[in-house]
Amino acid sequence: MKEELLVVGKRLPRWEAHAKATGTAKYTVDIKLPEMLIGKILTSPHPHARIRKIDKSKAENLPGVEAVITFEDVPKKLFNPNKLNLTLRTYDPRHDGKLTYQTARYELMDMYVLSEKARYVGDRIAAVAAINAGIAEEALELIDVEYEVLPSVFDPIEAMKPGAPRIHDFAENNISVHMPFPGNRGDAGKGFQEAAVVAEGTFQTGRQQMCQFEPSTCIASFDAAGRLTIWSLSQHVFLHRRKLAELFDMPEGMIKWITSHMGGGWGKFGSFSAEPICVVLAKKTGKPVKLEYTREEDFLEATRQTYIETGAIGVKKDGTITALQEKILAHGGAYFTHNSSTTGINMGSFAGLYKCPNVTAEADCVYTNIQPTGGVRGYGNTEAMWCLEQLVDMAAEKMGMDPLELRLKNLKKAGDPSSTGLPMETCPIEKVIKIGAERIGWKEKRAREKGDGVRRYGIGMAIFMHVSGAHPFNTQHRNAFIKFNEDGSASLIVSACDMGQNLLGTISQIAAEVLGVRYEDIHVVTGDTDITMFDQGQHASGGLYQIGNAVIIAATEAKKQLLERAAKTLEVSADELEVKDRRIYVKAAPQKGISVGEVSKEAIYNFEEQHLNIFGKGSFSPTPNPPPFGAIFAEVEVDTETGEVKVLKILFVNDVGRAINPTTVEGQMEGGIAQGIGITLTEDYFINESGVVESDNFTTYKIPAALDMPELEVILYEEEPVSSGPFGAKGVGENPNIAVPPAIANAIYNAVGVRIKDMPITPEKILEVLKAKSATG
Amino acid sequence: MKEELLVVGKRLPRWEAHAKATGTAKYTVDIKLPEMLIGKILTSPHPHARIRKIDKSKAENLPGVEAVITFEDVPKKLFNPNKLNLTLRTYDPRHDGKLTYQTARYELMDMYVLSEKARYVGDRIAAVAAINAGIAEEALELIDVEYEVLPSVFDPIEAMKPGAPRIHDFAENNISVHMPFPGNRGDAGKGFQEAAVVAEGTFQTGRQQMCQFEPSTCIASFDAAGRLTIWSLSQHVFLHRRKLAELFDMPEGMIKWITSHMGGGWGKFGSFSAEPICVVLAKKTGKPVKLEYTREEDFLEATRQTYIETGAIGVKKDGTITALQEKILAHGGAYFTHNSSTTGINMGSFAGLYKCPNVTAEADCVYTNIQPTGGVRGYGNTEAMWCLEQLVDMAAEKMGMDPLELRLKNLKKAGDPSSTGLPMETCPIEKVIKIGAERIGWKEKRAREKGDGVRRYGIGMAIFMHVSGAHPFNTQHRNAFIKFNEDGSASLIVSACDMGQNLLGTISQIAAEVLGVRYEDIHVVTGDTDITMFDQGQHASGGLYQIGNAVIIAATEAKKQLLERAAKTLEVSADELEVKDRRIYVKAAPQKGISVGEVSKEAIYNFEEQHLNIFGKGSFSPTPNPPPFGAIFAEVEVDTETGEVKVLKILFVNDVGRAINPTTVEGQMEGGIAQGIGITLTEDYFINESGVVESDNFTTYKIPAALDMPELEVILYEEEPVSSGPFGAKGVGENPNIAVPPAIANAIYNAVGVRIKDMPITPEKILEVLKAKSATG
Repeated sequence: MKEELLVVGKRLPRWEAHAKATGTAKYTVDIKLPEMLIGKILTSPHPHARIRKIDKSKAENLPGVEAVITFEDVPKKLFNPNKLNLTLRTYDPRHDGKLTYQTARYELMDMYVLSEKARYVGDRIAAVAAINAGIAEEALELIDVEYEVLPSVFDPIEAMKPGAPRIHDFAENNISVHMPFPGNRGDAGKGFQEAAVVAEGTFQTGRQQMCQFEPSTCIASFDAAGRLTIWSLSQHVFLHRRKLAELFDMPEGMIKWITSHMGGGWGKFGSFSAEPICVVLAKKTGKPVKLEYTREEDFLEATRQTYIETGAIGVKKDGTITALQEKILAHGGAYFTHNSSTTGINMGSFAGLYKCPNVTAEADCVYTNIQPTGGVRGYGNTEAMWCLEQLVDMAAEKMGMDPLELRLKNLKKAGDPSSTGLPMETCPIEKVIKIGAERIGWKEKRAREKGDGVRRYGIGMAIFMHVSGAHPFNTQHRNAFIKFNEDGSASLIVSACDMGQNLLGTISQIAAEVLGVRYEDIHVVTGDTDITMFDQGQHASGGLYQIGNAVIIAATEAKKQLLERAAKTLEVSADELEVKDRRIYVKAAPQKGISVGEVSKEAIYNFEEQHLNIFGKGSFSPTPNPPPFGAIFAEVEVDTETGEVKVLKILFVNDVGRAINPTTVEGQMEGGIAQGIGITLTEDYFINESGVVESDNFTTYKIPAALDMPELEVILYEEEPVSSGPFGAKGVGENPNIAVPPAIANAIYNAVGVRIKDMPITPEKILEVLKAKSATG
Repeated sequence: MKEELLVVGKRLPRWEAHAKATGTAKYTVDIKLPEMLIGKILTSPHPHARIRKIDKSKAENLPGVEAVITFEDVPKKLFNPNKLNLTLRTYDPRHDGKLTYQTARYELMDMYVLSEKARYVGDRIAAVAAINAGIAEEALELIDVEYEVLPSVFDPIEAMKPGAPRIHDFAENNISVHMPFPGNRGDAGKGFQEAAVVAEGTFQTGRQQMCQFEPSTCIASFDAAGRLTIWSLSQHVFLHRRKLAELFDMPEGMIKWITSHMGGGWGKFGSFSAEPICVVLAKKTGKPVKLEYTREEDFLEATRQTYIETGAIGVKKDGTITALQEKILAHGGAYFTHNSSTTGINMGSFAGLYKCPNVTAEADCVYTNIQPTGGVRGYGNTEAMWCLEQLVDMAAEKMGMDPLELRLKNLKKAGDPSSTGLPMETCPIEKVIKIGAERIGWKEKRAREKGDGVRRYGIGMAIFMHVSGAHPFNTQHRNAFIKFNEDGSASLIVSACDMGQNLLGTISQIAAEVLGVRYEDIHVVTGDTDITMFDQGQHASGGLYQIGNAVIIAATEAKKQLLERAAKTLEVSADELEVKDRRIYVKAAPQKGISVGEVSKEAIYNFEEQHLNIFGKGSFSPTPNPPPFGAIFAEVEVDTETGEVKVLKILFVNDVGRAINPTTVEGQMEGGIAQGIGITLTEDYFINESGVVESDNFTTYKIPAALDMPELEVILYEEEPVSSGPFGAKGVGENPNIAVPPAIANAIYNAVGVRIKDMPITPEKILEVLKAKSATG
């Protein structure tokens, strides 16, 4: 049963709707500072090359150029643009279920601000700052780099072979890290022996770009006292500030990080991008420097890392899963970045969805001479489900079982551990699947005859479990301030960034609901490390769940102050009062009351030395981490003559605990489904034989546009709110990206009996298998 | 005995020294917004005129003009640019010593944003917004105003006579308010009867300009959601925001007020100036509008109001003051603004300095057709001392007594009520006088023979008592936040504005001292009503005393958190710890310790769900209001042939409780002395017979420049810190302005026997008296 709420659960406009709709919202790129210079970066044309000499004199002498920097000018300190700088915790492989601290190996530092050696086409070699972009670009052409070209390797399997070119000195066989899965349990060998059928296969995931609307843009400016202000897009303002401080040997307090409106993120701004180079240029010139990526430069930076995943599942006659195995090759590209963290999550997700006593997984992270990867929405989970949720269908086929029924046989229940190892308060996955099956007409549609037409209909499905943040693997420290105005409105002061997910709007709804005021009474302040309290940043779908809780604590404190002051005026005790829609009233005599504004104003201007600027502070650290669940049903039509796949419909039943703003959640789900369709069917990098990325903008890299989208139906399952969530909410941000790809793959198999294990599923790949089948058939 | 302190009491650089020294500090005038328009104001050329018709069509049709506004376009609501919008309290005349609430009469509302009738040369009639200043000025010339010129009156005594032109309909005889002094006590008539001598006289004070470096500048901008951002200089950001909200019928929370660096204030920005017109223009055009005053426009706005003060003092044979009387005519000009508040303070200051059983005072505030007045540093106290401290010298002369001795006979003591009526913890005025007398050689110099040379030496002195804020007359609500960074530095988040008085630097010193960190570890955040907590604003010299106390409370809370966390690490109890110079250590074993940065960092990133962003909030409301005292000694040389006065030296012994930063205090005192010399000798408006201000910039209005300044000596008396003050400090901001004028006047009298009671003491006035004397002598 839902409580009766006035603001939470309502389809309210986004907090920044007016600003964005009128074009007045200011993005980092809109900021202009007096004397500001423009920075540009020179990158390597070779995938692997030693730098013999750089002559920058011609560039330096070009009028209007104020700095030319190379490896000589940057800190002689390795860093990792993704380093979270947190104590990371993982399951101790020797003590199942116990958490231990393991930091170093997961945050390998292997990058300089400008490289001493080129490791991919696009590696950063030098940079300039000039009075305008034209001069900066001209200057780049005047930098003379003498390269000694080295042999290069692009394929991760080749890279691991003896004799392959070594990309980083420390990494033998180009393996940066070997990762046994710390959550291994039972005896997988025994499990497979007990199985009636074993399905296995090697799957490969796609190299997807975040494709956020706004490319990386950064402005760095030192003031006269040596204090640095950074305007830059960031999902982790405080963690990024700390990382920058470490890299440049500055105290954290000497850096002020400001994040304006952001044109998307999806993991892109969980890492550094233009910032360190921009800081070196600003320091060298003594002027503000802006570095704005082109779309091509943005494409050359982080992408989704690709995996070669060899998986196996063992199933007993009765449908019980007996064993799961996953062996991963994580293809990170030229630098480490997120390699181990997405890989760890991949294994955790693979091993965590179903009940299974015997699990074994391990991974190798491998360097090659292609561009480095990053962390993209879905972050390992998408990749794990690509493998697992196809294996389940493959096993079901072998057993002659409905794959949906096989899933139902192996589901976890409330109280069981989630994929994080924490016990679950709710686990409505069975209901979610059944609602979806009923809604889409699963039984009837699976039973349809395929016929022999050119276009064949297919239906498939897949499920997933996700998280509401990174607890218990790293600290999840969140804070919120609420400060009242005289009119009963309040500033909500948080460090959260809004990448478009309407996080700031939904937490405003939460604040308004708790405080008993209206949505428009909440004025959000964010994005300046001088002003807001520490926040862990936006990752692992934990924003709403965690910050929402901090907001509830802050709002509850402020509400207490409001009611106590109102109680004096109304001559009752505070616990006899309630507040709703801007009015505080006596519960037993609702006509007796006073407005929130009157109380707030009285508090501020009270004369009798009892003044109070109504204020609440909330600090939250999660102890549970309630997993959201979901089931994706995909209907497709495959053209057997062209191999083309048309997705007809995606139905997504999403366990959200509670939707604070259903419109927001639906919008976020629809966007994520588009990304899921993209990686499954069309999105991929084309990297040519010289290591050059040829698909480096939207004319060559195909994301689904509006006309490519199928009918979408998102059902928000809100029957089981979690007690730990703000008004019952779980994290939902990455949900839609996770299981769309295997659902489509399973539907294609259902349509034409072709199982493509390598992303993307192109018409060519389908046609090739169809031809082979018809040749053998 | 002073405590041993590491930061407080040190001569540290100003907080914004780097920014100002390098020219990078941003003032409001430096702000440029996209699409920003420039506003200009059309003022009346007539001192008194009815507006028959305004034809704005030609102006509106000028390309580049986006709005032309007149009375028709502004809120039909009277306001007062000085209204504090607070419950004001004063002594109840019927119940001596008891405070009662009296609001309305002290904040008369008599002004529209643009006038419906011209009441002085400069009254605002219309305004335009255009794409640049040139077009805006051209547009002003195209506005056709048809005036019906009315008879006008410039002299306040003439204005009170029957038949004088009436300036405001409601004000009979042009008296806006008659004010009996609520602190009247005893029986003045009886007191004068008991007196051996009575000295009396009529004194007139000068029309002084604040002469702050930065003229009024305001930018107003509405966002797409109708929220207004104001960038403007303000000493009262929150009170001004509230006043603007009231004027434009907006909720306070829909206005965000930002104050950047300020080029001085001295009372100027205690009132509205360009803001309301700027808001109307921004609203009408839908674009940001900047309104930047010229120096001439700034001179046409608020000035110090002038008083005609008829005072009398009765003294018994033994030197005891028996009676004091003051009758005031407050010449406010065309609008009310601060008239009653400076006048009330004038009477309180006159009646409060000395012990005296019988006091009577009353005032009339009078309108004339000259520019309105405002509140200038000294704010009534300067004017009161001009009268009182000359009367004391006049009485002493009649009694054949050293005027310094007469003062010593009538001083208040600790425990007596100050001029606010509150009992005083300390009252070191006797010591202050004696230190000054000793230092300057009072006895010897007073005894010098004058001789008959052309240049005559004279020495005089005067004393004063002031306040550390406006308590108990209105709410003094102050707040401060302290938020730690990982490096052990902290944001100090306050609403205080720094007009140049280094308030933000001194409160940073206080924060650093309490927290045991360094001055440079405190990063100040201020000037944005969305972010900072409510603050009453900067007036009545209360900034340091009051906000300093809020900072101590906030810092003490943060320090407690630091010590508690350190105690865990060091395995001791928190009360065994102390913190100094960035290090927390065990008092009994100082080698055992941990840095503040380590504790702060550990707190933020702690994994075991005990994280904490070290944070303190302080809210302060004064209960005492410790008065600072001071004695001014002036040495002059008067040229009997030209009447010229050369001030040789000013010695100022200043009871400051404690100087948080002696350099800051000395600088502030020296600047104030310059203003005191200016009003005494040279600063005055020349308003011609048509009501036109002819002295409207620095070429015609003479402030003392460096070469005009005498030798200055400021002695900070710090032997009696007050327990209620931050580290013992009292308010000092206005101190130097108060008693310099009578000290100089008394010195001139000592030199040549001429007592000029009308400011400024020009050579012409001296010569005239000298000539009259030599004619009669």
